[in-house]
Amino acid sequence: MRRYFPILDWSRGYGRETLMADLVAAVIVTIMLIPQSLAYALLAGLPPEIGLYASIAPLLLYAVFGTSRTLAVGPVAVVSLMTAAAVGQLAQEGSAEYLGAALALALLSGVMLLAMGVLRLGFIANFLSHPVISGFITASGILIAAGQVPHLLGISASGHNLLELIGNVLTGLDGINPFTLMIGISATGFLFWSRGNLKKWLLHKGMSDLPATILTRAAPVAAVAVTTLAVWGFGLAQSGVAIVGDVPRGLPRPQLPPLDPDLWRAILVPALMISIVGYVETVSVAQTLAARRRQRIDPDQELVALGACNIGSALSGGFPVTGGFARSVVNFDAGAQTPAAGAFTALGMALAVMFLTPLLFFLPKATLAATIIVAVLTLVDPGALRRVFAYSRADGAAMAATLFVTLAFGVEPGIVAGVALSLFLHLYRTSRPHVAVVGQVPGTEHFRNVDRHAVITAPDVLTVRVDESLYFPNARFLEDFVQDRIARNPALRHLVLMCPAVNEVDASALESLETINRMLADGGVTLHLSEVKGPVMDRLRRSSFLEAMSGRVFLTQYDAMRALAPDLTARTLAACRRETQRAPLPD
Amino acid sequence: MRRYFPILDWSRGYGRETLMADLVAAVIVTIMLIPQSLAYALLAGLPPEIGLYASIAPLLLYAVFGTSRTLAVGPVAVVSLMTAAAVGQLAQEGSAEYLGAALALALLSGVMLLAMGVLRLGFIANFLSHPVISGFITASGILIAAGQVPHLLGISASGHNLLELIGNVLTGLDGINPFTLMIGISATGFLFWSRGNLKKWLLHKGMSDLPATILTRAAPVAAVAVTTLAVWGFGLAQSGVAIVGDVPRGLPRPQLPPLDPDLWRAILVPALMISIVGYVETVSVAQTLAARRRQRIDPDQELVALGACNIGSALSGGFPVTGGFARSVVNFDAGAQTPAAGAFTALGMALAVMFLTPLLFFLPKATLAATIIVAVLTLVDPGALRRVFAYSRADGAAMAATLFVTLAFGVEPGIVAGVALSLFLHLYRTSRPHVAVVGQVPGTEHFRNVDRHAVITAPDVLTVRVDESLYFPNARFLEDFVQDRIARNPALRHLVLMCPAVNEVDASALESLETINRMLADGGVTLHLSEVKGPVMDRLRRSSFLEAMSGRVFLTQYDAMRALAPDLTARTLAACRRETQRAPLPD
Repeated sequence: MRRYFPILDWSRGYGRETLMADLVAAVIVTIMLIPQSLAYALLAGLPPEIGLYASIAPLLLYAVFGTSRTLAVGPVAVVSLMTAAAVGQLAQEGSAEYLGAALALALLSGVMLLAMGVLRLGFIANFLSHPVISGFITASGILIAAGQVPHLLGISASGHNLLELIGNVLTGLDGINPFTLMIGISATGFLFWSRGNLKKWLLHKGMSDLPATILTRAAPVAAVAVTTLAVWGFGLAQSGVAIVGDVPRGLPRPQLPPLDPDLWRAILVPALMISIVGYVETVSVAQTLAARRRQRIDPDQELVALGACNIGSALSGGFPVTGGFARSVVNFDAGAQTPAAGAFTALGMALAVMFLTPLLFFLPKATLAATIIVAVLTLVDPGALRRVFAYSRADGAAMAATLFVTLAFGVEPGIVAGVALSLFLHLYRTSRPHVAVVGQVPGTEHFRNVDRHAVITAPDVLTVRVDESLYFPNARFLEDFVQDRIARNPALRHLVLMCPAVNEVDASALESLETINRMLADGGVTLHLSEVKGPVMDRLRRSSFLEAMSGRVFLTQYDAMRALAPDLTARTLAACRRETQRAPLPD
Repeated sequence: MRRYFPILDWSRGYGRETLMADLVAAVIVTIMLIPQSLAYALLAGLPPEIGLYASIAPLLLYAVFGTSRTLAVGPVAVVSLMTAAAVGQLAQEGSAEYLGAALALALLSGVMLLAMGVLRLGFIANFLSHPVISGFITASGILIAAGQVPHLLGISASGHNLLELIGNVLTGLDGINPFTLMIGISATGFLFWSRGNLKKWLLHKGMSDLPATILTRAAPVAAVAVTTLAVWGFGLAQSGVAIVGDVPRGLPRPQLPPLDPDLWRAILVPALMISIVGYVETVSVAQTLAARRRQRIDPDQELVALGACNIGSALSGGFPVTGGFARSVVNFDAGAQTPAAGAFTALGMALAVMFLTPLLFFLPKATLAATIIVAVLTLVDPGALRRVFAYSRADGAAMAATLFVTLAFGVEPGIVAGVALSLFLHLYRTSRPHVAVVGQVPGTEHFRNVDRHAVITAPDVLTVRVDESLYFPNARFLEDFVQDRIARNPALRHLVLMCPAVNEVDASALESLETINRMLADGGVTLHLSEVKGPVMDRLRRSSFLEAMSGRVFLTQYDAMRALAPDLTARTLAACRRETQRAPLPD
């Protein structure tokens, strides 16, 4: 029971010092979060106050169920993009159906996450390899940034994929609003500058480290304030600058998302994708931050927590949420000690939505677009593709495929393409395992690849080390390999399969071994095994293979050679003993 | 070029003896094939002569392109079932569209196989594990046999799955034709008896082995002849016994299958499934027979050959074909030496279709149904599920899933379910690898699991042997494991990752190793590697990990312990030397 309610753990010993640290962090995070929540709601195609609502209940629920001390949940860029892509196909942006579909998406995603957490299916997230995630996040960043450019220019353009978007922007260029463009360019420029240089400038001016960091992180708030004042002061709204407009005051009313079966069937796959992507992002962030403080997280409990957060978001008028990297790092750097910091942040957001929303009336959408663009372009890692490709062409191919398919067709096809390609390439590689013929390193009990080391082999004993588990993709490969070797080597009397790298022998491989055993016996060659792992041996004993096998199972390869080529081994060992007598080892 | 035309190989040295052997085999196989081809055409829902046509061109083409000396291609039970399932959804049985769709299916399948062969994609067939194939074949056998029971009873009933079929049979029982039932029961009984007992009886009567075998294999011909005579002699056709009827005489005219794009789109997936299943069956049979004679086959060329056979079948009015187990074994046992035996068989079938077809007029369909039932029930292996499950629950689950989904929903869903489950379970298993903490076996240079052997360990050095390649499904697992161990073990100063079982480190695992390196360094622990495989080391050198790693890479675990815990190792080695001096090894 304690596992499901981590609040019972960290709330022990909650004292005055921890409270102060959490409060300070909460204030800083709230200030940073207000513009970001508005921006991500607009990214998801929803009214801006929905972003504020989605930052209240989830943070409170995470404080109860979450295992990371510093993770902050709420709307994030990639999940907002996926929400817009999913809901945009089902309803018109701005309509009540659109909002209802977003709530349903959050509820369904929450239920899926909760179920996965209870069933301890957290390992499913591992099936997205890091290169696929990286390619997908880079492509999402590009898509998001490109999608915000029209807001910077004051034109209305959109597209289902990158090329369509670019085309619509180019055709709509004559509708640029100069004031919007000025606001957008200056906000973007300021935010890029502040990210790289503001802190250095403040430190140079004599400010100490922590306030400098905080001010740098609050730069978006400054941009929001200045541009809002400018629009209000100069009456730019009449000149065509799109503004946020009226944001309803007050807390969200608890509501149930629409329970239409057709709607739910339509959002089933997007909800699953959002759940998995959200979970992967949350766990990555949470583990990174936990490692810095030698803390642990419970990946399966994080599923439960995220599920609760999304259900809470749905019931309080929000949309799909997850742990966010930027906001969690801010929370961490601001000194948060426990998830109570997130709860206080939620209270701060609640106060903002109750009292501060009138101040947002004249906030230009171009400023929000600028904050999004600057935030996501930090996700784009251009050097990653080259690095990954240099290390592993298969991983590089999967990363490139994910990146291009996401840019061309959207997030869901991109992830599916990446995962499918990763799996296919992995199976392809294991279907052609590295097989080494090994011999004895003179003077030792070790056996190494004849192609890489100077080793001794016996003429009538062939030792083959298979560098892969034996299972269905490579079962036939071994049969072919053995058949080839006995054809080439008529003097052969023994074949030893050296198995230190064989972690599994599945049913298909077992049949192949039986075939190999018969094949060799027909040719007068005895089959032996050596260095079989404990778990593999346990399994083999449950079959009839060991009785049927013509030869023996040796614990070590050295034992095998002593039994099958005793003269050779004895000569080598005698040489070894003479060697050690000449140069005694240190005591 | 020679690779694509194996006929150039085996036709060398083709002399009189080989010719005689091939001719004898051809005669025997032709006799056996005639009723079987008729039966499988009916199974596919096609007119019986189509089965004869499909046994001519494919055999001739295989003689040119095939690499197996004894494989015989033509209509087989499972592919006929899949053809009926695919085409039955698109056209009415017996219509011209039905036949056109079957031709198109063969052509498309042939083109796919040819393309796969040229691209050397033969390894794809390895992705069907043996348990999945076994489950699918068993279920197909049950489905086929059940589908033939109405023909035995003289009623007309069918069903898309097993339960529907059983239901329709039970409701149609009042329409049983007693003569059909008698013919069906007696033919089935005779064929089952002959399969098990005829040979023994003939040998007992003094006949020698080869004629006895031949007569046993010709039992279906006897059943056909006797029942045809009975129907003709007693005029049973008027009493409601369904007969084959008029079979057109003469060779098939070359024809082009319909080239309708909608039709081709509809049969795209079934053609791919038929290609893969047909290829898997062909390669299994061909390799089994080749091994018996110490011959080799070329799996990628078999794809080319099978592609040519199917294209030839389509252009000569046939339907999808593949290498058949029963007919190939008969061919082998009858003494065939080269694929020329198949070519002569094709000539025999051509003669049959030109001259013998009037004899088939009164052939009762119940007899053909009996031959099918007896043939496929030998495919059903009830003990296999228990055996496989006892060895590997994952493989057993995949087999059971394939079996039940095939019975319930058909062959294509069954295969997809089986493959998906095999892959999922494999990934699940590798996402939780076996990780052993190892210590030194006293007196040796070997290191074994502390839980299974009595070994020596040093208090400040932890050696971890991961029994699995490091790749994306288990990348995070290792991070968790290491994090857990350093939390539990404050005295730790060195952690050695022993990698003899690590066959691959992909990009995701590389990032995990970098994370582990940093995590350990934060905690004051140095990370080392030992026994890294050559190919893995080559890869690691292409990254920056080795420079970043806090510790060293050791060639052997023993070297690592000598460097990191020299006192312990020296004491152990001294004990070893005293031991060997006491009991000298044999010279």
